[in-house]
Amino acid sequence: MSDAAPAPRPEVLVLNGPNLSRLGSREPDVYGRTDHDGLVALVARAADELGVRAEVRQSDDESDLVAWLHEAVDRGLHVVVNPAAFTHYSYALRDAAALVTGAGLVLVEVHISNPGAREQFRRHSVVTPVATGVVAGFGVAGYALALHAVVGAAAAR
Amino acid sequence: MSDAAPAPRPEVLVLNGPNLSRLGSREPDVYGRTDHDGLVALVARAADELGVRAEVRQSDDESDLVAWLHEAVDRGLHVVVNPAAFTHYSYALRDAAALVTGAGLVLVEVHISNPGAREQFRRHSVVTPVATGVVAGFGVAGYALALHAVVGAAAAR
Amino acid sequence: MSDAAPAPRPEVLVLNGPNLSRLGSREPDVYGRTDHDGLVALVARAADELGVRAEVRQSDDESDLVAWLHEAVDRGLHVVVNPAAFTHYSYALRDAAALVTGAGLVLVEVHISNPGAREQFRRHSVVTPVATGVVAGFGVAGYALALHAVVGAAAAR
Amino acid sequence: MSDAAPAPRPEVLVLNGPNLSRLGSREPDVYGRTDHDGLVALVARAADELGVRAEVRQSDDESDLVAWLHEAVDRGLHVVVNPAAFTHYSYALRDAAALVTGAGLVLVEVHISNPGAREQFRRHSVVTPVATGVVAGFGVAGYALALHAVVGAAAAR
Amino acid sequence: MSDAAPAPRPEVLVLNGPNLSRLGSREPDVYGRTDHDGLVALVARAADELGVRAEVRQSDDESDLVAWLHEAVDRGLHVVVNPAAFTHYSYALRDAAALVTGAGLVLVEVHISNPGAREQFRRHSVVTPVATGVVAGFGVAGYALALHAVVGAAAAR
Amino acid sequence: MSDAAPAPRPEVLVLNGPNLSRLGSREPDVYGRTDHDGLVALVARAADELGVRAEVRQSDDESDLVAWLHEAVDRGLHVVVNPAAFTHYSYALRDAAALVTGAGLVLVEVHISNPGAREQFRRHSVVTPVATGVVAGFGVAGYALALHAVVGAAAAR
Amino acid sequence: MSDAAPAPRPEVLVLNGPNLSRLGSREPDVYGRTDHDGLVALVARAADELGVRAEVRQSDDESDLVAWLHEAVDRGLHVVVNPAAFTHYSYALRDAAALVTGAGLVLVEVHISNPGAREQFRRHSVVTPVATGVVAGFGVAGYALALHAVVGAAAAR
Amino acid sequence: MSDAAPAPRPEVLVLNGPNLSRLGSREPDVYGRTDHDGLVALVARAADELGVRAEVRQSDDESDLVAWLHEAVDRGLHVVVNPAAFTHYSYALRDAAALVTGAGLVLVEVHISNPGAREQFRRHSVVTPVATGVVAGFGVAGYALALHAVVGAAAAR
Amino acid sequence: MSDAAPAPRPEVLVLNGPNLSRLGSREPDVYGRTDHDGLVALVARAADELGVRAEVRQSDDESDLVAWLHEAVDRGLHVVVNPAAFTHYSYALRDAAALVTGAGLVLVEVHISNPGAREQFRRHSVVTPVATGVVAGFGVAGYALALHAVVGAAAAR
Amino acid sequence: MSDAAPAPRPEVLVLNGPNLSRLGSREPDVYGRTDHDGLVALVARAADELGVRAEVRQSDDESDLVAWLHEAVDRGLHVVVNPAAFTHYSYALRDAAALVTGAGLVLVEVHISNPGAREQFRRHSVVTPVATGVVAGFGVAGYALALHAVVGAAAAR
Amino acid sequence: MSDAAPAPRPEVLVLNGPNLSRLGSREPDVYGRTDHDGLVALVARAADELGVRAEVRQSDDESDLVAWLHEAVDRGLHVVVNPAAFTHYSYALRDAAALVTGAGLVLVEVHISNPGAREQFRRHSVVTPVATGVVAGFGVAGYALALHAVVGAAAAR
Amino acid sequence: MSDAAPAPRPEVLVLNGPNLSRLGSREPDVYGRTDHDGLVALVARAADELGVRAEVRQSDDESDLVAWLHEAVDRGLHVVVNPAAFTHYSYALRDAAALVTGAGLVLVEVHISNPGAREQFRRHSVVTPVATGVVAGFGVAGYALALHAVVGAAAAR
Repeated sequence: MSDAAPAPRPEVLVLNGPNLSRLGSREPDVYGRTDHDGLVALVARAADELGVRAEVRQSDDESDLVAWLHEAVDRGLHVVVNPAAFTHYSYALRDAAALVTGAGLVLVEVHISNPGAREQFRRHSVVTPVATGVVAGFGVAGYALALHAVVGAAAAR
Repeated sequence: MSDAAPAPRPEVLVLNGPNLSRLGSREPDVYGRTDHDGLVALVARAADELGVRAEVRQSDDESDLVAWLHEAVDRGLHVVVNPAAFTHYSYALRDAAALVTGAGLVLVEVHISNPGAREQFRRHSVVTPVATGVVAGFGVAGYALALHAVVGAAAAR
Repeated sequence: MSDAAPAPRPEVLVLNGPNLSRLGSREPDVYGRTDHDGLVALVARAADELGVRAEVRQSDDESDLVAWLHEAVDRGLHVVVNPAAFTHYSYALRDAAALVTGAGLVLVEVHISNPGAREQFRRHSVVTPVATGVVAGFGVAGYALALHAVVGAAAAR
Repeated sequence: MSDAAPAPRPEVLVLNGPNLSRLGSREPDVYGRTDHDGLVALVARAADELGVRAEVRQSDDESDLVAWLHEAVDRGLHVVVNPAAFTHYSYALRDAAALVTGAGLVLVEVHISNPGAREQFRRHSVVTPVATGVVAGFGVAGYALALHAVVGAAAAR
Repeated sequence: MSDAAPAPRPEVLVLNGPNLSRLGSREPDVYGRTDHDGLVALVARAADELGVRAEVRQSDDESDLVAWLHEAVDRGLHVVVNPAAFTHYSYALRDAAALVTGAGLVLVEVHISNPGAREQFRRHSVVTPVATGVVAGFGVAGYALALHAVVGAAAAR
Repeated sequence: MSDAAPAPRPEVLVLNGPNLSRLGSREPDVYGRTDHDGLVALVARAADELGVRAEVRQSDDESDLVAWLHEAVDRGLHVVVNPAAFTHYSYALRDAAALVTGAGLVLVEVHISNPGAREQFRRHSVVTPVATGVVAGFGVAGYALALHAVVGAAAAR
Repeated sequence: MSDAAPAPRPEVLVLNGPNLSRLGSREPDVYGRTDHDGLVALVARAADELGVRAEVRQSDDESDLVAWLHEAVDRGLHVVVNPAAFTHYSYALRDAAALVTGAGLVLVEVHISNPGAREQFRRHSVVTPVATGVVAGFGVAGYALALHAVVGAAAAR
Repeated sequence: MSDAAPAPRPEVLVLNGPNLSRLGSREPDVYGRTDHDGLVALVARAADELGVRAEVRQSDDESDLVAWLHEAVDRGLHVVVNPAAFTHYSYALRDAAALVTGAGLVLVEVHISNPGAREQFRRHSVVTPVATGVVAGFGVAGYALALHAVVGAAAAR
Repeated sequence: MSDAAPAPRPEVLVLNGPNLSRLGSREPDVYGRTDHDGLVALVARAADELGVRAEVRQSDDESDLVAWLHEAVDRGLHVVVNPAAFTHYSYALRDAAALVTGAGLVLVEVHISNPGAREQFRRHSVVTPVATGVVAGFGVAGYALALHAVVGAAAAR
Repeated sequence: MSDAAPAPRPEVLVLNGPNLSRLGSREPDVYGRTDHDGLVALVARAADELGVRAEVRQSDDESDLVAWLHEAVDRGLHVVVNPAAFTHYSYALRDAAALVTGAGLVLVEVHISNPGAREQFRRHSVVTPVATGVVAGFGVAGYALALHAVVGAAAAR
Repeated sequence: MSDAAPAPRPEVLVLNGPNLSRLGSREPDVYGRTDHDGLVALVARAADELGVRAEVRQSDDESDLVAWLHEAVDRGLHVVVNPAAFTHYSYALRDAAALVTGAGLVLVEVHISNPGAREQFRRHSVVTPVATGVVAGFGVAGYALALHAVVGAAAAR
Repeated sequence: MSDAAPAPRPEVLVLNGPNLSRLGSREPDVYGRTDHDGLVALVARAADELGVRAEVRQSDDESDLVAWLHEAVDRGLHVVVNPAAFTHYSYALRDAAALVTGAGLVLVEVHISNPGAREQFRRHSVVTPVATGVVAGFGVAGYALALHAVVGAAAAR
């Protein structure tokens, strides 16, 4: 009804791990030329199109990412996370991510590059086993796809 | 110009590997309850929304998939491929997929389930190193995401 | 009752993988001197004794075996399968075999030789984890044992 | 000739390794609900049908099993052996089993469950390389199959 | 009620594996200077303080340990076990230990030294996956801790 | 002497690693239903019974744990530490823990669950080789056992 | 003698595996610029010079290659085979190749590129252990060398 | 010219990882008896001799080291880094270090001890592949050598 | 002095592990044709020549060998041991053997065949790291060499 | 022109590694019955047919082979090399071989036997990754093939 | 005293392994453009600055390097050694190097390139565990650094 | 007969590999205090007692050892060889040793220390699979035992 308060738009936390603040200048052939602000804008546009709210955060600190995943659980938020280098060894982040999906929320692991086509150590993710799904290799556009995936997966629950 | 023939809609080959014809009845907890016809319909709808044409094919025969990938090269078509069990050992399919991306076309590897969360042997893909990117874990909805990814990646070239 | 139609005899698919058409001439010290026709006759005799029908098929083509396993699911047939060389790498066949046992049917993996006593690569079967059981090392007589096993395992369900 | 003494029935040693005395109460979902006495009876019935004598013995002691395999060599008896946990590490039992098959006798390795579908360590048998063949995954009925296999393999020599 | 018979004190089997009879003289820098009699006395004192009965047994024979674990199942006794060298390879002992915890009883694996700080082969225990828990590195005092752990874990059931 | 000041009660640092603040809500089947406050209370009670002081701290930040271990060295405090996910990769924490035991203090590694019975990656601890000992698998009660172990091990020095 | 019928020229099957139909367009830096027709012509010239007949066949289908190897056995033909991607996993092809050499015929494995200088997975051939010999790294000229090798090896028998 | 302002002395960031604040007291046989203040003084003297400025920083926090490496990129500073325990697992630090050398700056990895002569896990550095070079095993004097190396390598660019 | 009692001849325990009672009949090409009695006689002759007493014992039971090694420690006897199959897995025997050499006595590991030239699993001995030395590959004559070695090594202490 | 000096015939160094001087007497079933002089003659004939000069040298000394490869670089000679046992470990020879191909010259690795069909350690060549190509398994005739290959590959440059 | 003979300048052996004579022409992108004579001059200058004598020797022969290391022990000379390809397999050189450091002399392992950033096999040095320290990645300038390191380390003894 | 010429004494080559010239000064705790001259004398005495001639040679050069093994074949001499560091990688020496045993001569591998109790890399010998047998761990006295073994093994042929 017209005079009813609009339903709150669902919210998604978009979390970026170490060195992603350097986007745009770091190995542009691999990671593209969009910088982190451009990424934030891209996510905002995609969120608007999907009718959700999305907050992008970045930290080089493992404990920040863990805390934000705890916050997602407490606030019931779905998550898009690019664990960057933590992908390959941070079991702390993995355990926190497992709390998110264990709580029935969606957690999408996103990678700008295609780790499966790079160095051997990048081919193993300790996060994937507890993620809902993975989107990798599509540059920063992968974040928009991940948001799509979140919305779809959340709706399917 | 108004009376010009409309530009042909771009076309994407969507290729499904072995046992995917059994969709809907095979381990529904893992692969969902949509059957292969439902998947074809879902892809058609997604293609329509994206303004592309998509043809879905399925085969249990490795040489069919190789031939279709050759066809993609010859006709300049982008590809979405779910190699299913071939993911883990078909270097023939991998070499054919490399022809696609080597020709400057987009090839997205899609998985209905999240192989990274399943048996050890499912965690290794021989196709990923030559794919443009990967979408995994979002059920059949992953095909729509993969089409999005194709369109985006193709536009970025 | 005498004028009642006899109950249909249960049916078992006996599937042979690549190179088994060469039986009798291929390394007779390992595989014995019975040829494939002899094997078919042996299976027929064993089936008769057990009061079941058994159809023996052979193909060098992985997709044939996958299709026959699908047929087993659709027709509710138990399966005896000698995957031959596919034993060691065909995850496509494994996934199809898993459909059989997943449907509550019996699937027995049979080997003419004892793979555990041969080259290292023959000691690993990708099919065993989804099979009901294994019979190996008894020459072509193993097929009769496998039929016995099928009948027994089916009765126990 | 009618008044001739009947030929002695051939004899098979059926040897069970550690913890098999607990059959029936140990993980019934894996090992079934037949207890060891039931197994003895089942083997007796199968032996009668096959016209052989079969003696079932069980021990948790590796040296008993080794001694019984020596006895089999000395008395010229074929063997069915379920090495249970010894399957995975007892090279002493393996060397003794090799004496049996080295003497031209049949030795069938039997497993109630399908070890290939269980924990990783259960997938490796140190006995298989010196066994005539293997029967696994058919519950206690596997012992009857193993007796069949012994009779068949012995006849083929 | 005052004139009621006292409740029987719960009983714990404390089982020691091979070479533990040599305690006190074997590598005292690693295993300490208390001999096996001293260990028995220490366990008795700890049991008294906890109001339980504890019987300490030692054997170099794998089948004794297996039998004692069977006895624990039959008599419903909790277990403290130091498998000593068997820790690293005795799947027979593991399967017997699994019978204990599978029956809802507590089984604590105890080590006098800290195997994780010693040779590579000592870092792998085949028993731990079926134990309730582990106490390691506290010398013979670890047995008292293990008894505490048994009492606590049993009470929590 | 009666009017002398009482000897200060010895003090133990009890350090908890990442995600342990979520205790009680995180996988209760694995970690139990006691929350972190309950754990603090439990440790306080156990410390009182043992006549020691114990301070419980928790952080998701590796550098906090490293700093607290440095503090233990500087203040001569024994340590109980549950490194949680850091167990499996934090060589920084390991090196700091080695400073504790290298200074002649006791450091007990505690785990609420039994890591040896869980995923493969949880079976390897980089901390154990420099710990005094390990207590694992007894739920939060393991902290009380660990305090016992500290008191005993400290007294034995 | 002039009026004698000429001895039939010996015949060699030259078999090409998956994706070799794409020769000339596939990674020309690795595989060269000769296409498959050019390869057929090159083989024909080399055969002429050597006085043998050579038939070149190509298939992306594993079962075709297996069938052609069976045909070689039945017709007593020597074989030059480039298994392409099948090199690395097709035990079916290996077993068929073993039939060829097991029948006393020559089978030469040929590779256009030098697999030993490429990706790790290309360094392992499952075919080599049953081949007479290997020629690799000389571009399409390797087929002529392989024909030479066949003629020489056949003459030496 | 005499009245010209002197050229600014080039500056080097000298970064120390976890536990290096404990220098002098931590395993003096391995790391020597110089404490961190002594190290700062030693670096200052070496910098003076080389005519460069060097700032020494230490942190136990991975994100500090990542941030300082970002700062090096932004300010165009060469780097000497002793990643300490992070050497063996911090891909976050590695990716940040790669930004330094990717920007054309020199990054020298230094170790006080010789990790190649210590525990197995210390023999693998995730940082070395992106470093300019390595100096290890010369005690704190290695920092002076590393400064020399920086100056030389920078001059060679 | 002439009327003094002769010094007692030193005594050596010669211990044989599982299946060595079958010597002479077990794989004579590998182990030779001397039976165990012949071995005892050979050892007696060698002992006489060396002026020592040697007692040969054989058991298929691991705990017998452990007990005999304990006896060697208690009586101060040097040991020649052929652990046979136990060589490859019996850490119980290893720990008991370590008691012997730890007590300053000589323990020589002897093998009739050359395990290093046989199956892969025979190439690893868990006993060697705690043995004084090894003699392998010289048939039963190796026992005489081992006695020589014992006498020489004992004299050198 | 008729009175012009003939163009110098191109020259190839044919280098043989350790133990190849024993050709003809060493395992004739594996290496054939031609001795090294026969090999030299065979190479001479093949060189004549091809219109090249070929010098055969043999040494058991790694540094001779390295020096000869250096000479090839300095004189611009193509190389056929049978590294024999050095194949499997001589990185010195590999680095020298890399100098040859790095200088744009052809280097063919030749093996008399088919190493891929022999012991595991013979299946790995440290030379192959820097060779132009490989010829293996054709007995001494492989040297003639290798010369052909050299001439062909050199002409293609 | 003024008229006393000057103290002899300490002497360092600088030893270069196989292929280093090719310096300047071998992969200049990796090893730089200085040739071996240039390296000798560079070392001489650095030695002069440090007030030591340094003799540079090069050999492709493992036994020369071993002999020179023996000479270093006999003459009490410190060593700088670039083992080149021997780094990865020459345990003979390692054992000789261990004689140097075992004699209390300094031995510095130097590499022109950064082996840790190259092929997998170059990342393992069999020499490092017995070296005093390592300098790698600084081109030929690394020899000067290594001389510095020698002088510093020698002074610290 | 008295005036007959005495039969020539059999001759044994005793070959020592790299660094064994340093015997007596190299790690005396591991290798003992006898120097190489003392070893020669010891071998001479042992040879005299056994009525054989023994020539001891030592070289740090792999090709010397290979040549001496060729000489042994040509002159029909048995061999005692201590390959020292070559034990672990010299397949050239292995192939030469295989020529000796392949010619029906005895070749005994001897080690002064017990390599099985030392570093991991010393536990693997590439020579053992082609040796007659092994003697290890008895110091230089092992050479006398090895001579005994040669004489015994030669007599048994």
